[in-house]
Amino acid sequence: MNRVYNFAAGPSVMPLSVLERAGAEILNYRGSGMSVMEMSHRSKVFQEIFDGTKAKLRRALAVPESHEILFLQGGATLQFAAIPMNLMRGGCADYAVTGNFSGKAAKEAEKYGTVRIACDTASTGHDRIPGQAELRQSPDASYFYYCANNTIYGTEWQYVPETAATLVCDMSSDILSRPVDVSRYGLIYAGAQKNMAPAGLTVVIVDKALAGHELPITPQVMSYKTLIDSDSMLNTPPCWCIYMLGLVLDWLEEQGGVAGMEQLKKARAAKVYELLDNSAFYRAHALPGSRSDMNVTFRTPDAETDAAFVKEAAERGLVNLKGHRIAGGIRASLYNAMPMEGVDALLTFMKEFEVEHHV
Amino acid sequence: MNRVYNFAAGPSVMPLSVLERAGAEILNYRGSGMSVMEMSHRSKVFQEIFDGTKAKLRRALAVPESHEILFLQGGATLQFAAIPMNLMRGGCADYAVTGNFSGKAAKEAEKYGTVRIACDTASTGHDRIPGQAELRQSPDASYFYYCANNTIYGTEWQYVPETAATLVCDMSSDILSRPVDVSRYGLIYAGAQKNMAPAGLTVVIVDKALAGHELPITPQVMSYKTLIDSDSMLNTPPCWCIYMLGLVLDWLEEQGGVAGMEQLKKARAAKVYELLDNSAFYRAHALPGSRSDMNVTFRTPDAETDAAFVKEAAERGLVNLKGHRIAGGIRASLYNAMPMEGVDALLTFMKEFEVEHHV
Repeated sequence: MNRVYNFAAGPSVMPLSVLERAGAEILNYRGSGMSVMEMSHRSKVFQEIFDGTKAKLRRALAVPESHEILFLQGGATLQFAAIPMNLMRGGCADYAVTGNFSGKAAKEAEKYGTVRIACDTASTGHDRIPGQAELRQSPDASYFYYCANNTIYGTEWQYVPETAATLVCDMSSDILSRPVDVSRYGLIYAGAQKNMAPAGLTVVIVDKALAGHELPITPQVMSYKTLIDSDSMLNTPPCWCIYMLGLVLDWLEEQGGVAGMEQLKKARAAKVYELLDNSAFYRAHALPGSRSDMNVTFRTPDAETDAAFVKEAAERGLVNLKGHRIAGGIRASLYNAMPMEGVDALLTFMKEFEVEHHV
Repeated sequence: MNRVYNFAAGPSVMPLSVLERAGAEILNYRGSGMSVMEMSHRSKVFQEIFDGTKAKLRRALAVPESHEILFLQGGATLQFAAIPMNLMRGGCADYAVTGNFSGKAAKEAEKYGTVRIACDTASTGHDRIPGQAELRQSPDASYFYYCANNTIYGTEWQYVPETAATLVCDMSSDILSRPVDVSRYGLIYAGAQKNMAPAGLTVVIVDKALAGHELPITPQVMSYKTLIDSDSMLNTPPCWCIYMLGLVLDWLEEQGGVAGMEQLKKARAAKVYELLDNSAFYRAHALPGSRSDMNVTFRTPDAETDAAFVKEAAERGLVNLKGHRIAGGIRASLYNAMPMEGVDALLTFMKEFEVEHHV
């Protein structure tokens, strides 16, 4: 069949068994006589898929009843606006800027209130996550915003920030990779296209008590109150992506849930970081203590050799290892669905490439 | 295989050959070694899918170079806000209210400027489309807004409104069913989930000259200027839906394009309306001259018999014939992908049901 090992940062690898299942029922979903892609979102058969996916996600992340799960469209970029429109109440909020996407979120929020920067790691190329004591917090902040994992720079928060404000987190690139105490958060959101489902679905988990205070100029499709009241069905939801998320959650449960995923992610990433730290040829970008298990960023001695690495890896079926255009270098994204065989194949290649290219 | 005939109003039936094609390449898209669902939206292989789909849509609708094609998320409901945010400039606009969705669009637009109602057909249950002379137009309107086809009530505009203002049209439920002179429009948009692709994609066709005048509070993800400049890739697009639209457009081209679709839609709908008009048992909702070829709405003598009709039809594999909850009755949606065999099976059933139930 010649499937590759796909190290893309998102959209990214999905479990093969999930794709096989989707393929097997693409013409006729479990006796319904139609594809999931053809189902009315108001039909009983689709409602069961929707409710089932939601229940599985609630179970996987132990989401308390105080919080609603929303299946939306528009990606993180839409949430960059929806969050301040709904939660800022025209006041202010603290933003921890530890990478590209938290920086964009802070910039967008300026349209709807006052943004205070709790930290900014740009001066060292976003190579680390600040400690709790470094976070400048405002006494009047309506919320504290951070991005749990920075795909571009390969850093990941190893702790949950302490704050008196409502905690808001972009978990796009590490949701479902470890247990989370959802009750500590006012709002968690994630684009689906890394650990959950195909691109086109955004999951928002929001404390229902926070809804109902949106600015008057908030589009209806961005009002958490309206979305909660309509159970994400204000308009047609991204049905196929919701179905695919359900299949991924079945697979995740078979693999031991988020606890199982956490073991796997630590094992995958540890192998690569160990090689990097024991090499005089490769150099990891992120500092120890701040490193992401999801996206490992590194370099060879120069940009030309980085490019050769990416090219030769692709010839071996190890694809999409090029770093993000704004960071350069090499990036291996090791999401939930990356099999250990893929990591081992990468390590074998890295060792051979080093021998071949080390002067 | 036991596929049903699916008369749902959207999401709705897709061409079987398209689903078969998608199923055949779901694990490995044309030698790429991965599913389209796993592809980085920045990869060469996905860029080819994206560009190909866009080129096919430009060809199918003869979209002039003055207009950009955008592949977005959020559905019509998001466009209800995006249109006034981008085009109203805080001034006013005229809205023709001929059904539920144009009414919702007008209500949402009130958040961003002054809405003037050009017509409202609510008093007669939205059973017709007003003539040109009935449209009240404002001399200072920044645009004139209408919805080409009303899925709930089963009416369809048979003419393009003449207006000095920019013409804006929601074509969600009849796009690609007939030729359109795109150059007459400032903006056309459509949710994909009826005639184009699975739910989760919104197509916007916009005159580039209109972009760049959005209100300061416009979210970045809703600024046409930003979306045009980034070629719909401000953030991750709904990749799978874009791919599916490409497959549907291949199929459409094989069927003779939008001219072929127009012949088919007229033939399908004419058969059903003929039966309705020659029956003392069934009653069509929409008036002649305003009738939709896409959604045929009708009733039996009473609500109880309507329910029996829907139930017995489903037992024969003719599903989703129930009218929308706010209109009641029966609705047969006859989108591009509905085969004539489905229409004929419906007619056979309608005749038998009438014989059985007519007192």
